[in-house]
Amino acid sequence: MEKKYEDMWLSSLSKRSKRLQSSVIRELLKVTQYPEVVSFAGGLPAPEFFPKREIEEACRHLIPRNGEKMLQYGATEGVPELKEFLSEKMRKYGVPSEPENILLTSGSQQALDLIGKVFINEGDRVLVSEPTYLGALQAWWLYGPEFVTCGMDEDGVIISEVEDVLKEGPIKFMYMLPNFHNPAGVTISLERRKRLVQLAEKYNTFIVEDDPYGELRYEGEDITPIIVLKKERVIYLSTFSKTLCPGFRLGWIVAPKLTLKKIIQAKQGADLHTGTFVQYIVNDLCQRGILKAHVAKLKKVYKERRNVMLESLEKYFPKEARWTYPKGGLFLWVTLPEGTDTEVLFEKGKKNNVAFVPGLAFYPNEKGRNTMRLNFSNTPPDRIREGIKRLGEMLKEEL
Amino acid sequence: MEKKYEDMWLSSLSKRSKRLQSSVIRELLKVTQYPEVVSFAGGLPAPEFFPKREIEEACRHLIPRNGEKMLQYGATEGVPELKEFLSEKMRKYGVPSEPENILLTSGSQQALDLIGKVFINEGDRVLVSEPTYLGALQAWWLYGPEFVTCGMDEDGVIISEVEDVLKEGPIKFMYMLPNFHNPAGVTISLERRKRLVQLAEKYNTFIVEDDPYGELRYEGEDITPIIVLKKERVIYLSTFSKTLCPGFRLGWIVAPKLTLKKIIQAKQGADLHTGTFVQYIVNDLCQRGILKAHVAKLKKVYKERRNVMLESLEKYFPKEARWTYPKGGLFLWVTLPEGTDTEVLFEKGKKNNVAFVPGLAFYPNEKGRNTMRLNFSNTPPDRIREGIKRLGEMLKEEL
Repeated sequence: MEKKYEDMWLSSLSKRSKRLQSSVIRELLKVTQYPEVVSFAGGLPAPEFFPKREIEEACRHLIPRNGEKMLQYGATEGVPELKEFLSEKMRKYGVPSEPENILLTSGSQQALDLIGKVFINEGDRVLVSEPTYLGALQAWWLYGPEFVTCGMDEDGVIISEVEDVLKEGPIKFMYMLPNFHNPAGVTISLERRKRLVQLAEKYNTFIVEDDPYGELRYEGEDITPIIVLKKERVIYLSTFSKTLCPGFRLGWIVAPKLTLKKIIQAKQGADLHTGTFVQYIVNDLCQRGILKAHVAKLKKVYKERRNVMLESLEKYFPKEARWTYPKGGLFLWVTLPEGTDTEVLFEKGKKNNVAFVPGLAFYPNEKGRNTMRLNFSNTPPDRIREGIKRLGEMLKEEL
Repeated sequence: MEKKYEDMWLSSLSKRSKRLQSSVIRELLKVTQYPEVVSFAGGLPAPEFFPKREIEEACRHLIPRNGEKMLQYGATEGVPELKEFLSEKMRKYGVPSEPENILLTSGSQQALDLIGKVFINEGDRVLVSEPTYLGALQAWWLYGPEFVTCGMDEDGVIISEVEDVLKEGPIKFMYMLPNFHNPAGVTISLERRKRLVQLAEKYNTFIVEDDPYGELRYEGEDITPIIVLKKERVIYLSTFSKTLCPGFRLGWIVAPKLTLKKIIQAKQGADLHTGTFVQYIVNDLCQRGILKAHVAKLKKVYKERRNVMLESLEKYFPKEARWTYPKGGLFLWVTLPEGTDTEVLFEKGKKNNVAFVPGLAFYPNEKGRNTMRLNFSNTPPDRIREGIKRLGEMLKEEL
């Protein structure tokens, strides 16, 4: 394109758009798609277990009977039957909610973006853990917050560090991944959840509880969601992307009614409403108990994969490496000795046909160079062994 | 909820969120859903013509064969086969484009929102017609532009008024609905399209060309899209919502590659990507020529409905009313004598079981009280006659 046109477009960009960044993960996934690469990089469910037959049956059954509704515009709030189902599911799960507390979103990612739109002013302090979910950073950076951080250990966020941040000055909200944290793989203990709520009360702020993996627990007991402890101070997010499939782009928000109204208004402008077609399909799978059975199956599959990864790490990784022990979810988190650079390792991995996500991507502040995220849901057991072996050998050469 | 919590949420809202408004249309649609109401209010396609059988067949055929891809995460840019198809379709339609110029969006509404995000700074002047598409106003208000306006006549936007606005000072872009304008029903002549491009050149700005209805022409010849006249100065939007069905939430953007990159980054943060499942279904319908055949059928159906509405207006409306003659699309626009208030009429219409959208909603500046939008695609011919008769009788009492 001629320079004068390029200049015109560039000079037309909004200030906020200068904060836009490409997702590191989405870029690096492009180089890890070859079949010879063992990739622990994505956050993808195992496609070989998608309930294809059940989804196809739902389409065959629903379209002739209900196609006129499924294919038409729908309410911004979501398909009423699915909202009803979700509010009941949430209640069983211990989350107090009515259909008026629920909004269907185009994946959880949209929920994050809408929260950014509705709450974040430029310069607002937003508390995130170190590391934190990359997609939240990506959605919110645009709105110009200052990310303030707290560390984590095996029991989740470190409460004293959270309080240190709160003492320094007001924050807009705390962003928490309670179960099987992406990327860290750890779960916030009940004791700490209670402390987070107390801190929200004391410092008059709220919590965004992002829970995509809660149903994928492979051992131990479910821990009470933060929203149950204090629904007046929590917006809760979840999604069907990990329990059913991501290709439908279907998630939901639970929030206080008046606050949800604002979020619904923002959603109207953002995409009118979430696809009605996929909402009716998912509603059918939920109502017929298919999703529940599918989650039970996934838990078996993913537990085995997690176990194989943990065993392989023990066997092949150098003794200097440490990793988290996830009781559910899709990820574990490896910490290497200070001074190791996992971005350099990533490049070496490419040559050895093994991939992961360098940890840097999950920090808002350039930290985490010696860390990496490993996904175990998307790779069959034998390939996990092979990939961890390759990675272990690389690391042993390196350290 | 206790007041202290309400205060906390309210005081947490972002400045931009105070500009959020509920869509008037979405609110009023709620009162027009009763079967006894003849509603010309929505902008909905005729659900009885959705190609249910063909969609069901596509699902039955595709899911067993391609389900693992359809249900998995996909590229932000969109499903490659569909991008390829669209770029070829665009080329046939006269729009110069390659797959790298195309981004699939969650409906055209998302395209509008992404454009607002990527381009509009607070206080930017954005040129829109009077009236204009409500959804664009709703998406953009949030970003704080100043809407500057130009009038329209039967040949679309009035060029001298466009130039007056440009002379007053720089604008960020011009928002144009070239074909069968929503709500006004008029089409911009080729001569005026050429003038718009000249003005964009002269004043160094760009045009957002929003074309959801271009394929639904009921008479006359297609007019060259603005993007064909000067692709370096145009972002073009379209959608499958009117030609196929809205429930899939599937639209697309055509833009210069570097500019599209920014929009793609914004989309990553907004919802990762558009649903893969529906993209594969639509791709199948496109590739097999089903969409093309369906559009041919819709044109016959909608042309008849338009004709019936025009005849009924002649027969039943008072002589003081004027209306546009749409050569395609879904809407026509009625102007009543100054001093008439169509919001008051709307309330009366509720009692008489007939509904429309008061024109005020389509103006960024409180004008248009004596106007209304009538949709003809969503109502069968007999009901159109009945509804226009009711409305005409009401108007005759009023005027």
